[in-house]
This record gives sequence, structure tokens and C-alpha cells, in this order.
Amino acid sequence: MEKFTKFLLSENEMPRQWYNIMADMPNKPLPPLHPGTGKPVGPEDLAAVFPMELIKQEVSTERYIDIPEEVFDLYRTYRPSPLFRARNLEKALGTKSRIYYKYEGGNYSGSHKANTAIPQAYYNKMEGVRRITTETGAGQWGSAMSFACNHFGLELLVFMVRVSFDQKPGRKLMMNTYNARVVPSPSTMTAAGRKVLEADPDSPGSLGIAISEAMEVAVQDPYTKYALGSVLNHVILHQTIIGQEALIQMAKADDYPDVVLGCFGGGSNFSGIAFPFLRENLLNGKKTRLVTIEPASCPKLTKGKFMYDFGDQSGMTPLLPMYSLGHNFIPDKIHAGGLRYHGAGVLVSQLLKDGFVEAKAKFQRECFEGGVLFARTEGILPAPESTYAIAGALDEARRADIDGVSRSILFNLSGHGHFDISAYEKYFEGNLPDHEVTAEEVDRSIAQLNLPVF
Amino acid sequence: MEKFTKFLLSENEMPRQWYNIMADMPNKPLPPLHPGTGKPVGPEDLAAVFPMELIKQEVSTERYIDIPEEVFDLYRTYRPSPLFRARNLEKALGTKSRIYYKYEGGNYSGSHKANTAIPQAYYNKMEGVRRITTETGAGQWGSAMSFACNHFGLELLVFMVRVSFDQKPGRKLMMNTYNARVVPSPSTMTAAGRKVLEADPDSPGSLGIAISEAMEVAVQDPYTKYALGSVLNHVILHQTIIGQEALIQMAKADDYPDVVLGCFGGGSNFSGIAFPFLRENLLNGKKTRLVTIEPASCPKLTKGKFMYDFGDQSGMTPLLPMYSLGHNFIPDKIHAGGLRYHGAGVLVSQLLKDGFVEAKAKFQRECFEGGVLFARTEGILPAPESTYAIAGALDEARRADIDGVSRSILFNLSGHGHFDISAYEKYFEGNLPDHEVTAEEVDRSIAQLNLPVF
Repeated sequence: MEKFTKFLLSENEMPRQWYNIMADMPNKPLPPLHPGTGKPVGPEDLAAVFPMELIKQEVSTERYIDIPEEVFDLYRTYRPSPLFRARNLEKALGTKSRIYYKYEGGNYSGSHKANTAIPQAYYNKMEGVRRITTETGAGQWGSAMSFACNHFGLELLVFMVRVSFDQKPGRKLMMNTYNARVVPSPSTMTAAGRKVLEADPDSPGSLGIAISEAMEVAVQDPYTKYALGSVLNHVILHQTIIGQEALIQMAKADDYPDVVLGCFGGGSNFSGIAFPFLRENLLNGKKTRLVTIEPASCPKLTKGKFMYDFGDQSGMTPLLPMYSLGHNFIPDKIHAGGLRYHGAGVLVSQLLKDGFVEAKAKFQRECFEGGVLFARTEGILPAPESTYAIAGALDEARRADIDGVSRSILFNLSGHGHFDISAYEKYFEGNLPDHEVTAEEVDRSIAQLNLPVF
Repeated sequence: MEKFTKFLLSENEMPRQWYNIMADMPNKPLPPLHPGTGKPVGPEDLAAVFPMELIKQEVSTERYIDIPEEVFDLYRTYRPSPLFRARNLEKALGTKSRIYYKYEGGNYSGSHKANTAIPQAYYNKMEGVRRITTETGAGQWGSAMSFACNHFGLELLVFMVRVSFDQKPGRKLMMNTYNARVVPSPSTMTAAGRKVLEADPDSPGSLGIAISEAMEVAVQDPYTKYALGSVLNHVILHQTIIGQEALIQMAKADDYPDVVLGCFGGGSNFSGIAFPFLRENLLNGKKTRLVTIEPASCPKLTKGKFMYDFGDQSGMTPLLPMYSLGHNFIPDKIHAGGLRYHGAGVLVSQLLKDGFVEAKAKFQRECFEGGVLFARTEGILPAPESTYAIAGALDEARRADIDGVSRSILFNLSGHGHFDISAYEKYFEGNLPDHEVTAEEVDRSIAQLNLPVF
């Protein structure tokens, strides 16, 4: 096997179930709270925005959940995704370590987001929903959802964060090609959007604002529901197909990872690859380190507070127990639009608190440097988001060489950067500013909110 | 097998040789001629622009040529490419036929061009070349060559046809990311470019002009060679890896194509998928129809003349026996930049003349209509060039339904359209003009040349 570069699976070998980390977490997460009553929210509180099957998945403690046949039929048009040994990158680094990456950018949408877009559209369709509203940052999630909704005969309205709307016109056109309507956020279409625009007509927007707008539209019509591309438990559940496949592929490579890395926005691509390996740590005595890489300019895991906070900017979601920078926090306009989110998913937050995962932060300049090295050696032009995982993997390889050992390093290459090429232009021009958010800034952001911090 | 959607091969199953149609053609093509002497050109005439190993492949009549280990090592980072059954497209059409496509857009460069970029860079490197010059239309070939040259430590200078340079800025930036220098053509860097600009300062350029510029630079320095992305025999040889794989994959699908289609610019993606099936026709009694689809605005196979003509605009190449619109022909500014070439490769020209392949022409509007249907059903956003193959396949399916039969239809989806999204915007705006070139226009174009027509 030593010389193989690419580890594929046949459709026969594809996992048929998602893995639910809730079954195996030593400490279950705290419940989401109703902001009015302060009581845990029940399924009925969520029924206005999500179909019942997704609400069930949100709270399920079953270890495995079957992938429906109709979802599997679309999964197999692009899954299993390949797992690569990065031999040319290893050579360029001169490292003794083995670097692997799971490439999730090879599908129609160009990122891992297809893995949850398809089941979300499917479950909505099954429950008679006619229209979906959603947010998107860089546009990966919106593209994934556009095709999935069109496939299942659902209308889609996408609120796209304005800074990304302006940076990445190709993504908007792609969503249009898949029949979706795309509106820059903040917009004048919602009360939430108008309020932001009154305070700052030039607001670059944020995922938190776009979520508020999408939810506001969804709750006004019984046949319209809302869909979220990250953060929530059911989203992360769907993404575990990545790690489930990677486990089989690493076995084909006759190797097992010492460390697994993913970039971090709300948690879905990291959790997707990491949780099946975490299960092996928890149940089968493995000792793989699981490492998130987030932007220094949006450092919720490394500098945020563990607290109950809203998932959106205007406070429409339940209060979620998570690491947060405060739901009013507006991150720098970095090119990794998918990582510009103030909070972290509940599952990862609890696991970080309990010491089962690690968190690191990086500047975008260093990440693009890694991304360019990766493109020149491995060929694939990575999404700005994915360059954070690359930079994290490069650190691990360099540290192993300093330690004089060969480690097995696996990261999730969550998407390609074909619609983000102008970000590379900025990098080559030396024009990629971002700043390290300080503890004081976080304190100020959270102090405004009047919400309890643990 | 009936339910499978995707037919993959392991690295173990990858073909290790390219297939050379020259071995099996009933009528060998006429020789290229030296324009000065009128005599057939010998290897020494080509040595100023190509390395000897590629010249040998250009004239070889060996049936199979081994893929070098270093080339295979890069091939296996992205090959074998998947073969899909287009089940969702079939459903949308309501056809009884089985539609398959081989997807060549999943690699770093986004198209089949990587298959010849890698061996061309490799053979040049082996013979001590330091710098390559080349042309590119839409940028697929330039992107493929940029990565390959950087991998083997060669400098690359790309002359990009101006209309594509303006339409597709992302492609230029991608080539820069892979360390290549990109110049819009016609340029002031060469005598050939300056001559065109004097006559028409607003010239949109053409592949023929860009080839002249690239060759002019190459012949001035012994350590610089020139590389071509289509047309020539050695280029087509390298692309046969596509059809070699497809034969094995169709067997895995328990099916065999009644018809194989490819879009047509210079001939490389069509020939790549079709020639291994043509071998089966010639040697093993199969009866697969092999169909090229070209733009109605650049119809060399359907309306051009079989003649000796130059491959470039200023007459630097040998005279090639091919179907041509005349080397001064400037096609409409259609979005399928890779199909804007006046001539057809020598091998396909001879085979068309002898009745072994068929040729059809289409307007870009109909092709984009097919491309949008394909994107909405199969997910992948096709390159403008590839939409011609899609439109051809849709015709075949509709005709089979009219005939009341189920046919097996295979086409080459040569690349993705992630850098061509503005072309889709134009399509939705109803703004995609092109005109059907008439026989009179072709006569006028060729009459200027004073070259013999057969």
C-alpha cells in the first residue's frame, strides 16, 4: 500500500448511518433555553422553524441514525469523497510526518455543505414545506442548499452576508443558476435588517444578522421553514459522514491519525471529520488529538466566554450554551467568510470545556501562505476557510520534526477556492489585514448583552 | 449493478499506457509540410520548438506508449476520473436511454488539460528545457500547464486570448497562483502580436494568434520550448487515458455506448474519450458512433475545407492537412473560448474525411440551455465548452425516444464552469449572440490564403 496517493471507497463501502456524538459524550450539553421563560425549549418551540424530523435529530441520543434512501441516492453522486496522502506537500516541507487530507470540495457545491443541505431539504420536503429561507457567508452553504432545494422542488431564499456578496459575485450567480433567490444582508426586507442598516448603512453584515433575517421571514408563513448550515446538532450529525469514511480510508492507508484538524466557523466541518475519531478515543482507547483552527479576528473558542447566548444577532434563536464573542460581535472582513461567526456549536463548546478537543487561532496571512504552498504542491486551490486547516497541519508537521518523530496528520480540506480567487490576489498584493481580537474587546462585546457568563 | 451512479477505478486498475490511433487508422494522415520547401517536415524541423520525445510521439505508429512513472505519479493524484450515470438528467428528460458522462473537471486544473500538461512538462524537463511558452483560450490549458511546469521546476509564459483574458479574470489569477506569467494576446511583446494590433487595436485575439506569439518567443532561445494544448498527435495521445478508463468503467456499468460525444475545439477532449472506442470499432467489430459538437460560429468540421493550412495565425507552424476555416479566421466572441480555433487536428480531420467520425454544429444559446438543465439535475456546473457535448447528448436521447429505443449515450464532460459563471449570467439575461458562419464566409476566409484545397 505504501505508494498509494489516493484512497477511494466504492458505493458499496459507503457508511449507511450518521454518527451522533451525543450518545458518547461524558457530559451532555446543557439544554437550550427559551429567552422569555428561561426554561429549556421543547420540540414544539422549534416547530415554527424546523421540520419535526430534524428537531428529533437535534435532541437524539441514539448513537447511529440511518441515512434515508433518497439522501443516500444523492450522496452517492459525489461520495465517498477521496482521502489523499499529501506526498508532494510532505516533500516540499521535508517533513518526516505523513500528511493526509479528506477533500470535500469535489462535489457540485464545492464544499462539505452538500452533506447537510441534501438531508435538510429532504426532511423539509417530506413534511410538506414549500419554501426555505437561509443565510450564507462565503456562499458555500447557499450553493449547496440551492441545488438541494431545487432537486426536491423547494423554493429557496438566501440572505448572503454583504461583504461576501460583494467579494464573491460568482457564488450569487451559481445560486441563481440553481434557481435560488439571493439577497445581500443586512437587507431592507426584514425588521432585523432595517434596524442594522439604520445604525450603520455600510454594515458589512455578519452570519448572525443574516440568520435573524432568514428566521424572521420563515416564522411568518406556515409553509416556510428555516435552515442553518452549521452550529446545530443535526447539522453536525449529517457531517459525520466525512469522518466515518475517513476511518475506513485511513485503515486502507494502513495508518491512523495522531491528530485530526479542521477550520472552525460554527463547527460543522471540524466536527464532521473529528467526531468519529473522538468516538474511537472515548470507546476504543485511541488517543487522537482533535484540533480546531479559527481566525485570530474571530476567536470564540480561544478567547470567547462559555455562556448562554443567542445564535443570531437579533435574538430570535433559543439561548444556546456555547463559547461566544457575543451575538453583536462583527468580525473583521476576512476572506474566510464562513468563519465569521460569533459563536461555536453547543457540542464542540461542551467538548472543548471538557478537554476533549483543542483550539488554536491564526491570522489569515499565514493561512493563505499555507494555502498557496498547498496549491503549488497538491494542485487544489483551497477555499480561504480551508487554508486555516492547512496552516494548522503545517504547524503539526513542523512540531513533529522538531520533536524528531513522524506523526500521522489528517485534516479536512473542506472546499475549493474557485470563487475566492480575488482573495489570493489580495494575498499576493500583501493586502490581507486582520487584527487579533483582545480579551478586552471580547469583554466589551459581551458586557453589552446582559447575559450570564459561567 | 443496476443502481450504481458512479463508476470508480482504483489506482491498481489505472491504464499504464496511452493508445495511439495512428497504429490502426486505415488511411494514415498526410504528412505535415515545410512551408518553404513544400517537403514533408522531419523531426529536426520541429526540434526548435518541441523536445525530441514529444516529436517521436508525434510521428509514432506504435499502438501503445508507456506512461512514465513520474507522470503516473501525478496522474494518480486525480485519476482515474469518475464515470457517472446521469440518472437525474435522464429522469428530467423522461428518456428511456442511458446517459453516462466521464467527468474530467475534478482535478486541480478543472479540465482534461491536465492529462497532457503533465507529460509535456515532464518530457521538456527531462531534456533540459528551462522555460515553456504557450497559448490559452478560456484558461483551462494555461491553468493545467502552470501547475505542471511549477511542479517540474519550469518557468511558464502564457499568451491568453484577450477576449477570455477579459471575460475570465479568475483564470489569470489561478495561473499566477501556480507561478506562471500571463500576457493578453495579441500583445506588443512579439512581432506577430504587434502586426495584429496595428491592423486592429481592439482585436479580441484568437488561439491562432496566441500560438504565433508563443512560438515566436520560444524559437529565440535554445532553453525555451513551446507547448500546445490540443490539435497535435502527441497531445491527443495523452488524452486517450480518458477513453481507456471509460472502457473499463462502462464494463463495470454492464453497458457499452452506442454513441460517444465530445465538444470540439482542436480535438483533444473528443479524441481522448473517442479513440479507444474507435479502436474497438476497427479491431473488434463494435459499432459505436463517434460524434463531435462544434460551435456554429466556428464550424471547421461541418463547413471548413480539407486543406493544407497553418496551425497559427502568422504561419510559423508546418502546413497541416486538416479541416480549416483559414488561419486568419476570427471567430465570434463566444464564451466557449477553448472552441474558438480555426482548424481541426490532423487525426480527426482524416478520420472525418474517411467517415469514421461524425460532426455537428450548435449555437451557444442551445448549449447553455442544456448546461443549465445539467447543472440543476446533476449538480455540476459545466464549462461553456462542455455544454456543447451535453447538448449533443440531449439530442441523441431525444432521437432515441422518437425512434422508440433505449440507447447508451456517453459524453465527455471536459471541465467545470466555476471561472465562467459570468457566461451563465449572460445566458439568463438572454444576451448570448453568435451567428452561423456561412459557406460564403468560409470561402472568403480561405480565398485570402492562396493555399491549395483538396
